[in-house]
Amino acid sequence: MEERVHNFNAGPAALPLEVLEEIRNSFLNFKGTGMSIIETSHRAVAFDEVINDAVERTKRLLKLGDEFSVLFIQGGASHQFCMIPMNLSLPNKPLDYINTGTWSTKAIKEARIQVEDVRVIASSEDKNFSYLPSGFTVDKDASFLHFTSNNTIKGTQWKKYPDGGDVPLICDMSSDFMSHPVDTRPFGLIYAGAQKNLGPAGVALVIIRDDMLKRIPNNLPTILSYATYKDNDSLFNTPPTFAIYVIDLVLTWLEDTIGGLEEMERINKEKASLLYEVIDESKIFKGTTDSSCRSMMNATFRLTDEELEKNFLSDAMKNGFVGVKGHKSVGGCRASIYNAVTIESVKSLANFMKEFESANT
Amino acid sequence: MEERVHNFNAGPAALPLEVLEEIRNSFLNFKGTGMSIIETSHRAVAFDEVINDAVERTKRLLKLGDEFSVLFIQGGASHQFCMIPMNLSLPNKPLDYINTGTWSTKAIKEARIQVEDVRVIASSEDKNFSYLPSGFTVDKDASFLHFTSNNTIKGTQWKKYPDGGDVPLICDMSSDFMSHPVDTRPFGLIYAGAQKNLGPAGVALVIIRDDMLKRIPNNLPTILSYATYKDNDSLFNTPPTFAIYVIDLVLTWLEDTIGGLEEMERINKEKASLLYEVIDESKIFKGTTDSSCRSMMNATFRLTDEELEKNFLSDAMKNGFVGVKGHKSVGGCRASIYNAVTIESVKSLANFMKEFESANT
Repeated sequence: MEERVHNFNAGPAALPLEVLEEIRNSFLNFKGTGMSIIETSHRAVAFDEVINDAVERTKRLLKLGDEFSVLFIQGGASHQFCMIPMNLSLPNKPLDYINTGTWSTKAIKEARIQVEDVRVIASSEDKNFSYLPSGFTVDKDASFLHFTSNNTIKGTQWKKYPDGGDVPLICDMSSDFMSHPVDTRPFGLIYAGAQKNLGPAGVALVIIRDDMLKRIPNNLPTILSYATYKDNDSLFNTPPTFAIYVIDLVLTWLEDTIGGLEEMERINKEKASLLYEVIDESKIFKGTTDSSCRSMMNATFRLTDEELEKNFLSDAMKNGFVGVKGHKSVGGCRASIYNAVTIESVKSLANFMKEFESANT
Repeated sequence: MEERVHNFNAGPAALPLEVLEEIRNSFLNFKGTGMSIIETSHRAVAFDEVINDAVERTKRLLKLGDEFSVLFIQGGASHQFCMIPMNLSLPNKPLDYINTGTWSTKAIKEARIQVEDVRVIASSEDKNFSYLPSGFTVDKDASFLHFTSNNTIKGTQWKKYPDGGDVPLICDMSSDFMSHPVDTRPFGLIYAGAQKNLGPAGVALVIIRDDMLKRIPNNLPTILSYATYKDNDSLFNTPPTFAIYVIDLVLTWLEDTIGGLEEMERINKEKASLLYEVIDESKIFKGTTDSSCRSMMNATFRLTDEELEKNFLSDAMKNGFVGVKGHKSVGGCRASIYNAVTIESVKSLANFMKEFESANT
């Protein structure tokens, strides 16, 4: 086995070692075809099996009802920010958004480029997005209610999703998709850029409910309509075949090796606890968010002293902990502990933090 | 070395064996980072070197002037069909298109969704796109003149590009990009889906000239504006890092192993000649296009007898020649002989065709 670092990158991020080994081992000869997966036609039977398997595993893992379709669309979550208002706005019905951080803010900005009546019905911007808002009212006639399930940069995560009443929920689940079970019934659309919990950058997995498809205007550019992906099983044009292949391997690992989303959630809770316990007991590390809504995926924290923080980040890097620096827009520290980050990596980081504290107090 | 088939796929297609081996060998440890390329942050120095190298090699290989920028955009050529009219139409100036096959037709369809005055100034549809039109007149006040340099399905290729006068050319070069030198000066924009000559599916390489950037409306969705990619060096959102990494390796092979586009063209001509000589001398194989414009990338042909054609395709498959069946929309046979298809593979196919003819006449 090759030497591997402890990868706490926020995305693209760590992937399961057994998945990486499988890709490597069959890279020159995909399923006995005598060619690489990246040389294989998207119309080949061998690839058809891959994409169908990825769809079926997604349906099983999330226990999706028959009213949902699973689509693969290029462009990542940022592309969805544009497609959602374009496809799913109802005439003269406002778009409701909850603003809980950098990515929500971007989604709102893109909605406003296209639709006049975009309402931010709740926001935690007043306290630098360190908490999640409550006590808001959803417009009854809203086209949809959009929110971000996990805020990668700010380190917050909804434990109980906002209640939209009869208004369909639309959710950017990029950074905690497939990390725990979800009751998908209130959702009109769920989307997730792959590069956190699912696979390589370059594709978003989109789950859309049948009633949403009826909203799509028929004069959209073909490539920007959800109907195109639904009607062609995500094969209208050449899809990002390698990314979908890796997603299928990751979903296989999640279902067959881990044992599904309940077990994944248990492991993720255990991993997050290891870090938050260190932070809660520490005199030099402190969390940056309300502890009631801190993320199981992105543990954000600061050191009480700026010089110490610099030393911590530099020592972490030297000791093989990669990606522990916070996002450039907020600074500080962040350990992204997505599904594929092992409990051993998290234990090592927790121990390293404790040792650093001992040596520096 | 693993057993490899002769891959004549139309795209995704054959890639250089040395590139595939390099990907495999460093798959668990990219540039000594202790992680896979697909786990590496798009903000990491190691990836920055990759994308910058890919841009610089593109500029050197095509001898691009300083007025050109090289961008990486998700969604493939089909996504460009939508972005081009959205970004580059001038008010009250028609869009001129030349229709030479399936992909031109799709580009025209997408332009018409967005712009009223789209003119097809020349077409070879009357003879099932088996030739390339001449003697047409470009509107002097057109926003641009769009054409397809190589018609993957129909098997034709422009040997001398249409003259747009002062009207900038826009070209879909997906299926012959980087297969021969190009005088890029008359072009406002060149685009190419990667999955033929460049790398894996999931990204288009776009070359845009500075004066085109001034046309872009400022109210576009951010992700659909060329300015976004130009202003952020293709890193506005997470790019398809793996696809760009493979493109960089392919461009390295093209520049350092092959020796550049002049040499690549010489090899491609030799490969195409091997097949067209068999076709020209055959009593049972016949080309489907005018010989003056037949493609160096996609050799299309039929057999004189339908039963014989079925047998040929089935025998080809049995003998390790993959992807020789024509596109489902036209039938017949097609051998796609992109840059990475070796002369040995083409010789083997040419010999197989001759042997098949001997055995069946």
